[in-house]
Amino acid sequence: MDALAALAAPDMARVDALILERMASDVPVIPQLAEHLVAAGGKRMRPLITLAAARMLGDDVSAAVKLAAAVEFIHTATLLHDDIVDQSDMRRGKVAAHLIWGSASSVLVGDFLFARAFELMVETGNLAALGSLARASRVIAEGEVLQLSRARDPDLDEPTYIQIISAKTAELFAAAAESGAIGAGGGAGQVDALRNFGLHLGLAFQLADDALDYGGLSETLGKNAGDDFREGKVTLPLLLAMARTRGREDAFWQRVIARREQGEGDFTRARELIIGTGALAATLERAGEHADQARAALSRFDDGPWLRALSDLADFAVTRAS
Amino acid sequence: MDALAALAAPDMARVDALILERMASDVPVIPQLAEHLVAAGGKRMRPLITLAAARMLGDDVSAAVKLAAAVEFIHTATLLHDDIVDQSDMRRGKVAAHLIWGSASSVLVGDFLFARAFELMVETGNLAALGSLARASRVIAEGEVLQLSRARDPDLDEPTYIQIISAKTAELFAAAAESGAIGAGGGAGQVDALRNFGLHLGLAFQLADDALDYGGLSETLGKNAGDDFREGKVTLPLLLAMARTRGREDAFWQRVIARREQGEGDFTRARELIIGTGALAATLERAGEHADQARAALSRFDDGPWLRALSDLADFAVTRAS
Repeated sequence: MDALAALAAPDMARVDALILERMASDVPVIPQLAEHLVAAGGKRMRPLITLAAARMLGDDVSAAVKLAAAVEFIHTATLLHDDIVDQSDMRRGKVAAHLIWGSASSVLVGDFLFARAFELMVETGNLAALGSLARASRVIAEGEVLQLSRARDPDLDEPTYIQIISAKTAELFAAAAESGAIGAGGGAGQVDALRNFGLHLGLAFQLADDALDYGGLSETLGKNAGDDFREGKVTLPLLLAMARTRGREDAFWQRVIARREQGEGDFTRARELIIGTGALAATLERAGEHADQARAALSRFDDGPWLRALSDLADFAVTRAS
Repeated sequence: MDALAALAAPDMARVDALILERMASDVPVIPQLAEHLVAAGGKRMRPLITLAAARMLGDDVSAAVKLAAAVEFIHTATLLHDDIVDQSDMRRGKVAAHLIWGSASSVLVGDFLFARAFELMVETGNLAALGSLARASRVIAEGEVLQLSRARDPDLDEPTYIQIISAKTAELFAAAAESGAIGAGGGAGQVDALRNFGLHLGLAFQLADDALDYGGLSETLGKNAGDDFREGKVTLPLLLAMARTRGREDAFWQRVIARREQGEGDFTRARELIIGTGALAATLERAGEHADQARAALSRFDDGPWLRALSDLADFAVTRAS
């Protein structure tokens, strides 16, 4: 992650400048709210991937810079709308925007950023790159609705769960890489390979995040550990643990997940079951498989600093949870 | 309106089929919620304008059909998000979607329709038409945020109010006409003229709607009369009446608009003040001026059934409130 960030620093400076420029509006609430989220930063992983995909294929990143800013705008818009959907209190270590400016402003500024993203894409003149990100935007919305309709459903199965995170998370990683490759004039094979890289990287990241929410394999819990559990969100570690304790722990899961009646010690107990049944290890194994597939997608490209940085990113996706 | 609808019926049948086709999704909530709103219909005024603009310039409406469906999707998405912002109970004569499926689903299905609109535009291969609608989507969001930040503000002035409805309402009418003209291969002068037509038509419609909310000039009130008043929404008739009764009725307006403490007889009293001060007539006069400007924008085109239908639409925008 750090290697990629260092390598992409000059390109990312251009992306950041563009993001600030295009957040501007005559309506003061818009830049205020957008800045709250954008200034909070986050890892800027998706625009980094767009830039890296373009750099893999050549030196002209003028389209990729605009596409990277568009990708970050789409991501930020989905976060704003997500926080309303989930009624989240925090985002990127700050109070969620909807609690400061109200849900209405969060909906509308999300719409503003989404539209701004498409305006940026229009400027590249690249209809195929635009098509990739339009499709991703639609797939993300479908994934969110699917997740919403299965929220706190203790019968969620693994294939449906993978379908949800493929749409909700991995699709934007895929389109971030794909659009960067298209913008750099890549051939069909190169574009497909980078799209696949992004897709599997996104799955690896999400699955590792799901494991981290139960502390991963380390002894110490991260600062956001337990968020999914408190929300009753059914992720892979939980889903596998519930399946593996069927007939034994049904009453416990019904109470803490389906009814969300949680008391002291419940998270610790859930975590013990998730580790004890091997559900956490199985989740990290799946994450590792996707990281392998992400790296394999890069095999057609020649060695170089960008290739190594992307390959390291696939490692990092999983090792941080192990 | 009827003349245009009859003339465009075969083209609109294609648009309707496309709308139904593209509302489809593997996630059942999406078509259910979208159908609730789309089946409720509405006048389909914006896609009609896109088709008419294209028909004014030639016989190939293949791009315009897709753009018209995209325009309706953008409009529907903004309605879904608007209903959450305004906490409306009804939309198109049916219970508002967010009250049936929840606000979260309304936000996300709005996002889905918005993205679908861009996918449709990509299919036309026409980047300029896409740019027009991307810009409109951004301007609409800005207008909505501006309106929200000035909601129930008794000091709202006329220029700011015109700025809000230009962005919120007229911009999509303008882009509907503009994109139809671009999609039909119109020259710069033709495209500008049709954009101007749409912009002034949109302003005429919105101002007449604002007047209709206070019953227009007729003796009998329409079925939605009083909605704006009940929400404390400051529109032009109200804004002018408040300015014209300054020093006399300040306490009344403060109570019913700023504090929204309304009792029996308050709407009747507000209506009397709005009619008595000439605020309603002044609003309809402004609407009439914009209808004139819309018609004037058509003067460069040769006479024909489409020209006459659009010209009649500009008349209809205002006469229905007189």
